[in-house]
Amino acid sequence: MIDTEQYRVKPGTSVDLGKIATAHDGGLDADAAKQCFDEISDELDDLQELMYAQGKHALLVVLQAMDAGGKDSTIRKVFGPLNPQGVRVHSFKAPTKRELAQDYLWRVHQHTPRKGMIGVFNRSHYEDVLIVRVKGFAEEARWRKRYDHINAFEQLLVDEGTTVVKFYLHISKDYQKQRFERRLNRPDKHWKFNPADLAERARWDDYMAAFEDALGKCSHDQAPWYVVPAEKRWFRNLLIAQVVRDIMTGWDMKFPKIEFDPAQITID
Amino acid sequence: MIDTEQYRVKPGTSVDLGKIATAHDGGLDADAAKQCFDEISDELDDLQELMYAQGKHALLVVLQAMDAGGKDSTIRKVFGPLNPQGVRVHSFKAPTKRELAQDYLWRVHQHTPRKGMIGVFNRSHYEDVLIVRVKGFAEEARWRKRYDHINAFEQLLVDEGTTVVKFYLHISKDYQKQRFERRLNRPDKHWKFNPADLAERARWDDYMAAFEDALGKCSHDQAPWYVVPAEKRWFRNLLIAQVVRDIMTGWDMKFPKIEFDPAQITID
Repeated sequence: MIDTEQYRVKPGTSVDLGKIATAHDGGLDADAAKQCFDEISDELDDLQELMYAQGKHALLVVLQAMDAGGKDSTIRKVFGPLNPQGVRVHSFKAPTKRELAQDYLWRVHQHTPRKGMIGVFNRSHYEDVLIVRVKGFAEEARWRKRYDHINAFEQLLVDEGTTVVKFYLHISKDYQKQRFERRLNRPDKHWKFNPADLAERARWDDYMAAFEDALGKCSHDQAPWYVVPAEKRWFRNLLIAQVVRDIMTGWDMKFPKIEFDPAQITID
Repeated sequence: MIDTEQYRVKPGTSVDLGKIATAHDGGLDADAAKQCFDEISDELDDLQELMYAQGKHALLVVLQAMDAGGKDSTIRKVFGPLNPQGVRVHSFKAPTKRELAQDYLWRVHQHTPRKGMIGVFNRSHYEDVLIVRVKGFAEEARWRKRYDHINAFEQLLVDEGTTVVKFYLHISKDYQKQRFERRLNRPDKHWKFNPADLAERARWDDYMAAFEDALGKCSHDQAPWYVVPAEKRWFRNLLIAQVVRDIMTGWDMKFPKIEFDPAQITID
């Protein structure tokens, strides 16, 4: 069991990613942690059925990371075991021409989860203060205003019944190198490698600065960011599963009241 | 391994559901079948990764059945083990007022899978020739035309790169009774029971006639219906997994060609 609280970004603090370990394991034993993960995974399964049955809560999980940070693998390991009927994953790619003709939250809003559902965002509106900032796709005067937009947007979601939780998967530049080399060495993983990713890698420090701002300015009690040390993947999975489990347990859900008396019903 | 061909509805034939066994097990041993299912499930996992990587094919899986026919459980067992990023389930409920202001295929079209994805429909446009017909929500002159619309719609999908496969989960009226009673006897399953379902049950024969027409008129080589004996759930799972696996294997997929030479790339 992890003390998840220490990985949550406290509202109004500034974040220094250089001081946060990426290969951290919380002092846990890998095998014990995996067993603990399996137990939480079963709990999540039950909680999700209740959530779906009750149709009262929605959960939005945002995943952000540098390339090779483990977003895909997190989705697979943490959300894969759940009922696919109750989970919807949306991967945000570069915006289309049509999408660019709207404000940047327009396309995002269309994919927020409805009640009863878990929505997982693989990348998200945070790209609009990450890559957009680092690559200068918008001028600073424009992207600077976006932290407020994003906070207001997430507040809307929260006020209307969606719980929002955000995970930054924290890896080092060296670790990314290892993962890229692995992709290059395995023909069945070549499709995951894009030489253009190297241009992003070259701006590592700029990205770290952009992440630090996003994490620091947009973490709130109702829509927190967690910095997840992501190089020990079993630790990453356990931490995320535990945070999600704690959120869902906190809802204190019950199966919906039925409006009939089962004892009075006969099936002909 | 099942000879899936015998469960496929041949184009232009009429279907007599009363003559098709619901508790059929194909003469297979349950344990051997479960092991075979696990192997196919692993194959599906690899095929799905290839499908996602290649982004060339889309697959639409339609599931229809009477209440308690096992649609939810099929989704969970057959599609649950796949990467949630590559599968999108859509459950069609009673149409909203907004949806009713359009033709009945409008809302359906919005949820067809994009290339690289598996879309699973829990109920579908077939409801528009099933419940709509049985309950008289549209006049006969209107729903009679729909088989042609549906065939044309599915032909469009096929011609533009989506493979369509449809499964009718076949159960008996007695089996439905057992499943309903189980729901009534288990408080954690009460939410799945709706007394209104009994009104549908009372029209069982009308539904069978409507299914027979839908299956007979809308099964084509490119978008076939399968009648799946669904009371032995392990048989149902194996049959569906095998049909899907055979479709995906038939695509003869390859990882996309990369446009760089991995040996020439150095990660700084």
